[in-house]
Amino acid sequence: MSDNDLKILGICGSLRKKSFNMAGLRAAGELMPAGMKLEITSIADLPMYNQDVYDAGMPEPVGRFRTEVAQADGVLIASPEYNFAVTPALKNAIDWGSRPPDQVWQDKPIAIFSCTAGPVGGARVQYDLRKILSQIWGLVLPRPEVFIGNSASKFDAELHLTDETTKKFLTDLLVGFKAWIERVRRK
Amino acid sequence: MSDNDLKILGICGSLRKKSFNMAGLRAAGELMPAGMKLEITSIADLPMYNQDVYDAGMPEPVGRFRTEVAQADGVLIASPEYNFAVTPALKNAIDWGSRPPDQVWQDKPIAIFSCTAGPVGGARVQYDLRKILSQIWGLVLPRPEVFIGNSASKFDAELHLTDETTKKFLTDLLVGFKAWIERVRRK
Amino acid sequence: MSDNDLKILGICGSLRKKSFNMAGLRAAGELMPAGMKLEITSIADLPMYNQDVYDAGMPEPVGRFRTEVAQADGVLIASPEYNFAVTPALKNAIDWGSRPPDQVWQDKPIAIFSCTAGPVGGARVQYDLRKILSQIWGLVLPRPEVFIGNSASKFDAELHLTDETTKKFLTDLLVGFKAWIERVRRK
Amino acid sequence: MSDNDLKILGICGSLRKKSFNMAGLRAAGELMPAGMKLEITSIADLPMYNQDVYDAGMPEPVGRFRTEVAQADGVLIASPEYNFAVTPALKNAIDWGSRPPDQVWQDKPIAIFSCTAGPVGGARVQYDLRKILSQIWGLVLPRPEVFIGNSASKFDAELHLTDETTKKFLTDLLVGFKAWIERVRRK
Repeated sequence: MSDNDLKILGICGSLRKKSFNMAGLRAAGELMPAGMKLEITSIADLPMYNQDVYDAGMPEPVGRFRTEVAQADGVLIASPEYNFAVTPALKNAIDWGSRPPDQVWQDKPIAIFSCTAGPVGGARVQYDLRKILSQIWGLVLPRPEVFIGNSASKFDAELHLTDETTKKFLTDLLVGFKAWIERVRRK
Repeated sequence: MSDNDLKILGICGSLRKKSFNMAGLRAAGELMPAGMKLEITSIADLPMYNQDVYDAGMPEPVGRFRTEVAQADGVLIASPEYNFAVTPALKNAIDWGSRPPDQVWQDKPIAIFSCTAGPVGGARVQYDLRKILSQIWGLVLPRPEVFIGNSASKFDAELHLTDETTKKFLTDLLVGFKAWIERVRRK
Repeated sequence: MSDNDLKILGICGSLRKKSFNMAGLRAAGELMPAGMKLEITSIADLPMYNQDVYDAGMPEPVGRFRTEVAQADGVLIASPEYNFAVTPALKNAIDWGSRPPDQVWQDKPIAIFSCTAGPVGGARVQYDLRKILSQIWGLVLPRPEVFIGNSASKFDAELHLTDETTKKFLTDLLVGFKAWIERVRRK
Repeated sequence: MSDNDLKILGICGSLRKKSFNMAGLRAAGELMPAGMKLEITSIADLPMYNQDVYDAGMPEPVGRFRTEVAQADGVLIASPEYNFAVTPALKNAIDWGSRPPDQVWQDKPIAIFSCTAGPVGGARVQYDLRKILSQIWGLVLPRPEVFIGNSASKFDAELHLTDETTKKFLTDLLVGFKAWIERVRRK
């Protein structure tokens, strides 16, 4: 690992302890191509967005989160789907990040994947996220798209990713993300 | 007011104290047609959705909120728009309400309006809400659509609605909502 | 069949001769519950929407199509998905129908299903259609949702529906649609 | 003009002769920054997409259109909004372009603006287009966003753009598009 590595910030849209998406992020950390490193943040301590709270001054966890996003070379989001759309915890993190003075999503390379218990794998939450993040000028990696359905069959009881095909998909996503960051970041 | 009045539950998508949307809900309460009454709930005390919390048993505020929705003849939602989409506080309330054993949005008549500081009035959050609520089988009033832009010019300093045109729009929405409830509810 | 039967107009979003969606509509015609009858129209002869054409007077096929929708008690749409969204032929029919003097979709009960060659079954086109049709005040049946994936395994070489499970799903959709029409139509 | 100029293909989502969007494209052609040139194509002669037609061999206008897109360094789309969504003529062009053997939208830099007679300026069609084009891996310029509402007041009777503010917005869009193309195209 070197100081020149691309710094990737991992964000998980689920708050549960045994989240498959968090497990997927940890697996991604181990599958990172050379020249990238992943640090996973927590959004569990961000208070629910309330403009009164914002006006009174950014709470410390919000300031910390915003700085993490701002300093990252890219953001890797893993999220389940709630009612066909973004989870409240993740929308909350996105909204806190978007507020002045510095909208931290602007021009930020972003990659998305999703793990779900059911078979479909989260197609709709990915499109919801793409729409929201693109509208606030995030630079969302177009593809590959990685939908990890039937997650219970792909992670073991300790939530280690054991499915080789899924490892391959995640690796392809990360390799593509690296090329995307190098392609779109401002020179 | 009689026991036969349609019970409407008001939900505000903003948590700030001086919310124009909350002020709009209070104005709606005063403009209710005969035969309907509005009670406004709070979603500020719902914890951020986390499946671990759900699995450990519905927190008390969640149980209270779900009962309120379940017992209402209709739900009136007023919400601002955050990043072109639903606010995290409102998505959180929707997601808590949708969980088993009883998905409280199913077959529930719902009307929506939005107040915004800017001129557009929240068209996109209304479409985002319509999409989400329809997908979980809420029965969203198709129209009239009420977008209250430039809210600061329509409410006074104490947040009373003073704009007569806006009062007319809200009244039309409520009259339409009453007819909608009578039309779609199961006999 | 009696004059009191609910008249359902079938619309297929695909123009190909061996369309699985057209085959699904024909199967629906055979599965209709008592008290409903299906007539399938064609949208193949509607010219591409062009305001100049509209201003010069509705072309005959457009006038015919609009009358069919206006006179139906309900509309049953079967459509594939093109690039995650509505097909151009179907969007064209919707747009022609929405023009003054009489917007034919307003207050019209509508049910949707989709057949696809691939496994997913058209979830995204259904949500795209729900969004568009709801916004122009169609009354879209919330559920059941019927996604017929892997269509080649469910229809025989003559495009007769042979899969019993799919027949059951379609029957449930039609029974639900009948109840929906009776519930939402103006008395 | 030189052979090294970036070739931009203009596509108009409206087929009417006096289309404000076509007028906007012509205005864009005059406002192009040095190093870019615009050629406007027509999608009026593309037949309605039908898989049988596709299977029988690409019709000549389709082949011509696909080649134009494939050879362009970027695509500039101007489109009105029909029922909150893409026009059928434009969806038709997108769908024809997306078919094998070469999906012409993939990796293609795209910029969008919209002219409408009404005041809102087409926000919803732009989001619909962004969603569709991103899902088929077009590289849509995130901003600036240009919504030209109340078009009749901004173009003269011969459909020349006369509004200086709008000229400024279009110029900003084109300058941003040039930088975007240089940023995202494969080296």
